[in-house]
Amino acid sequence: MDKTFTLTVSCKDQCGLIAAITNCIASKGGNILNMAQHTAIDISMFFCKVDFEPNQSSTKFSEEDFKNTFEETAKKYNMTWKLFHRARKQKMAVLVSKTSHCLYEVLLKHQGGQLDCEIPVIISNHPNLCGVATEFHIPFFQVDTGKGKVAVEADIQRILDQYEIDLVCLARYMQILSSDFTNKWENKIINIHHGFLPAFKGAKPYHQAWNKGVKIIGATAHFANEELDQGPIIYQDVIKISDTNSIEEFVQMGQDVEREVLVEGLKRYFNHNIFLYNGRTFIIE
Amino acid sequence: MDKTFTLTVSCKDQCGLIAAITNCIASKGGNILNMAQHTAIDISMFFCKVDFEPNQSSTKFSEEDFKNTFEETAKKYNMTWKLFHRARKQKMAVLVSKTSHCLYEVLLKHQGGQLDCEIPVIISNHPNLCGVATEFHIPFFQVDTGKGKVAVEADIQRILDQYEIDLVCLARYMQILSSDFTNKWENKIINIHHGFLPAFKGAKPYHQAWNKGVKIIGATAHFANEELDQGPIIYQDVIKISDTNSIEEFVQMGQDVEREVLVEGLKRYFNHNIFLYNGRTFIIE
Amino acid sequence: MDKTFTLTVSCKDQCGLIAAITNCIASKGGNILNMAQHTAIDISMFFCKVDFEPNQSSTKFSEEDFKNTFEETAKKYNMTWKLFHRARKQKMAVLVSKTSHCLYEVLLKHQGGQLDCEIPVIISNHPNLCGVATEFHIPFFQVDTGKGKVAVEADIQRILDQYEIDLVCLARYMQILSSDFTNKWENKIINIHHGFLPAFKGAKPYHQAWNKGVKIIGATAHFANEELDQGPIIYQDVIKISDTNSIEEFVQMGQDVEREVLVEGLKRYFNHNIFLYNGRTFIIE
Amino acid sequence: MDKTFTLTVSCKDQCGLIAAITNCIASKGGNILNMAQHTAIDISMFFCKVDFEPNQSSTKFSEEDFKNTFEETAKKYNMTWKLFHRARKQKMAVLVSKTSHCLYEVLLKHQGGQLDCEIPVIISNHPNLCGVATEFHIPFFQVDTGKGKVAVEADIQRILDQYEIDLVCLARYMQILSSDFTNKWENKIINIHHGFLPAFKGAKPYHQAWNKGVKIIGATAHFANEELDQGPIIYQDVIKISDTNSIEEFVQMGQDVEREVLVEGLKRYFNHNIFLYNGRTFIIE
Repeated sequence: MDKTFTLTVSCKDQCGLIAAITNCIASKGGNILNMAQHTAIDISMFFCKVDFEPNQSSTKFSEEDFKNTFEETAKKYNMTWKLFHRARKQKMAVLVSKTSHCLYEVLLKHQGGQLDCEIPVIISNHPNLCGVATEFHIPFFQVDTGKGKVAVEADIQRILDQYEIDLVCLARYMQILSSDFTNKWENKIINIHHGFLPAFKGAKPYHQAWNKGVKIIGATAHFANEELDQGPIIYQDVIKISDTNSIEEFVQMGQDVEREVLVEGLKRYFNHNIFLYNGRTFIIE
Repeated sequence: MDKTFTLTVSCKDQCGLIAAITNCIASKGGNILNMAQHTAIDISMFFCKVDFEPNQSSTKFSEEDFKNTFEETAKKYNMTWKLFHRARKQKMAVLVSKTSHCLYEVLLKHQGGQLDCEIPVIISNHPNLCGVATEFHIPFFQVDTGKGKVAVEADIQRILDQYEIDLVCLARYMQILSSDFTNKWENKIINIHHGFLPAFKGAKPYHQAWNKGVKIIGATAHFANEELDQGPIIYQDVIKISDTNSIEEFVQMGQDVEREVLVEGLKRYFNHNIFLYNGRTFIIE
Repeated sequence: MDKTFTLTVSCKDQCGLIAAITNCIASKGGNILNMAQHTAIDISMFFCKVDFEPNQSSTKFSEEDFKNTFEETAKKYNMTWKLFHRARKQKMAVLVSKTSHCLYEVLLKHQGGQLDCEIPVIISNHPNLCGVATEFHIPFFQVDTGKGKVAVEADIQRILDQYEIDLVCLARYMQILSSDFTNKWENKIINIHHGFLPAFKGAKPYHQAWNKGVKIIGATAHFANEELDQGPIIYQDVIKISDTNSIEEFVQMGQDVEREVLVEGLKRYFNHNIFLYNGRTFIIE
Repeated sequence: MDKTFTLTVSCKDQCGLIAAITNCIASKGGNILNMAQHTAIDISMFFCKVDFEPNQSSTKFSEEDFKNTFEETAKKYNMTWKLFHRARKQKMAVLVSKTSHCLYEVLLKHQGGQLDCEIPVIISNHPNLCGVATEFHIPFFQVDTGKGKVAVEADIQRILDQYEIDLVCLARYMQILSSDFTNKWENKIINIHHGFLPAFKGAKPYHQAWNKGVKIIGATAHFANEELDQGPIIYQDVIKISDTNSIEEFVQMGQDVEREVLVEGLKRYFNHNIFLYNGRTFIIE
């Protein structure tokens, strides 16, 4: 991926968008590797993700030059766009509390090369998972919740700044963040909720599900915003349960879905598949 | 199934329940074919379903006699119980409107021997599906919604009485029933809702799902009661959708889940797998 | 879809393929609606499907002219390509024997607008499903297997010619076709096999599966060729089964998978998603 | 589970089996907690698993006495049976090579209380996973494959003896065991095969799957016997793959299925759900 660039584009649907984009890339000596494109006909919106690399022979490819040229095309069609040089890895902080299953999964998948980012720091409001961080040779910071939310979030912010963090992953972090914090990190915090949103918001979703007698439970990876469990949904999965399962078994079975859903959500983020429009996501793969 | 009896029992969990039940059956010359039993530890409730048939040599088996004997056991343990002679098929009326996919599925699965009931009548507020009823040689009645809900429901009741109906199946019947009607038919109306309850109640669940950007859609078979889409859930299933699917595609894809979920719900009803307790179901298979 | 064209292209992977294709379409006044592209890195092959329609203002679009122009691009890159005018529906014959579930599914999905083809004729070696054909107003022909395979296949060929058939669908047609016939209709016969190929070839796959004690059963839609159950796989799906299921239940449960898999295979065919290379398919959606 | 006993029974189907079993348990002061029973009608075999605990007031329950009494019932009906005192944990050795995903999963699920056994030792033919063993405080032994299969298996046997191992788990152990070894440990070695058996036996199943163009890949937990990848199947699961996935992605995606399937297979073993008959398993839950 070292030489690869990813370009994401969204705008109102119009004629000639794909030709305009691909011509611009070709004119600058870019070779398209993959292209994913979708027009959401219900709202006439066009979403496009292009992976390209500079042509081998074209030694003169300049990121700055490309951006300037593409901006002209973008203006003409009123496009929202971003360019990512894949060699520059994004940096993710993982926030945890006491349960380990999501943290282990994030670290193991990262170790296996399936999460295209760096993980320079783990932050927790409890000491329990310090050993896991150590196993994977990642610095671990414990924040002192006794100091109150404002002070704790200031501490967290300081650590995030220090490590130049791009994305915050809430891997079963059991504290509600202030709206000051979520606004500052808008669309840059991914949370795993252990319920099939929008069905079971808030606390103890497995208890809610059991009491309602639903036959399927799930988990949801979503951007955290100031309304609890209401941010844009990134990924979801479910499992069928039986009425012979206890609430405790729901909790155990649910952990496998939670960890899978969180990692799939993170993969899509670092792979630039997530487009946001009108308060919801469009995942274009 | 002609000679088979099904006994369903529920009560507070206590020692010796299974031995008490099986001894009673054995003492009357019954041979147990299958036994499904579960103790819901979260509420200490015992649920049990036993299929048995009179021993070949025991010519003297009497349903009445068994009931009298079992009632003594039931009293001792404060059991709620029912006995079904499987040779007596239950009778189901199917209520429809204009869309055919659920009706076809019910009729085809019934034809294939997978729904253990009779279907003596189909009722609709539109003429569109009369041809389907005719293909399967089932009487079709159209009710006139112009007459108002009270008159229509009186008409429906008359037809249900005439055919001695045990269960009403709402196979995408697009009218809201009065609480008078749902109370009269309490736990005897099964509805298919085209949403993953409790998430998307009410009208246009696929539109709701699309607007929310969920990544999974589903359907729910449930008993209809006076609160719309709130009755006890019997069966649910889901499919993953892609953000490249339009609302119209949600509708098409959802139809396959709806028909499957409805039939699976009906199967469990006629197979006596459904136990109701505290406003939710326990499916014991 | 009336004005839409679909272009499919495959070739060895090279630089500039997408730009070449999209420029050719743009130069002839085509507006791209959707583009699906994949490079199979394990074999360095490029597969691409483009849906486009003539620009509204460009009254002069000519299919013949486009083909001539594209042929030059194709030669340069050694492309294999096809152009389909979606207004010209393909014609499918359905061959059946006695079981109805696949036939019903094909006809219902076609009725619901999910199969982009015409179904002018149904052919069977048994009379049983004539009534179903009649319900859907489609001519039904019974061939006389007593005459021997050569004569029967000649009869079938005559009917296929008469109705100008493009694709033959074997919807649980329980006769093995001669290699003469399958060669003549190479990659133009889609069969549904009631097993998860390549695991359970040949007869009675559900019995094979039960005897082996597998925990999952499935079905496979594939092109029929002269080697029984060996043709390129188009679509597959499975369901988990329990060891408490009997072989008869396998058969019933399997029918739902068979009909789904067959229809999904047909959808991909008529939607031009299927690319063939080196004896296997690549489905590009 | 400390006081719980599990009784497993299999025999030819006959009248009165359940009453005979439950009466014997009741007569000895046992209180049935759960009962799972199935009659495989295709072969007229009865399988039953009963969890019971001595009645609180019955201080005199003796395992030996129960066994003697039950043996009389067993003889009468020609039953095969076993009794397990759940307080006596079984001991599992895990054999690994270089890949960590299955080992991590086994250790994490064991840590989470989902595998009802002890894991006193990990054995490997490579040093790579020693660190993982250390994290979980389990002794790690590396065997020297340079010495040849006979010597290595003798070393392994010695370690298994030393730790009084009941079950050997091959968690991606990349050596073929001799038939001497598999015969000695008949139905006491559980292997994870990274293919959906019986479809893709032997080496490189993901490559086989890709070359065949199948649309679903899977994994199989099975007892190892002298025929490679032919032993009785315990658990299987699959995932749908896309033709846009590379072989390398098959390998990555497959790892999640492998680890899940292995743990589910082990759970069923330690929970005594596995019945063996005629070369296949029946899982009774």
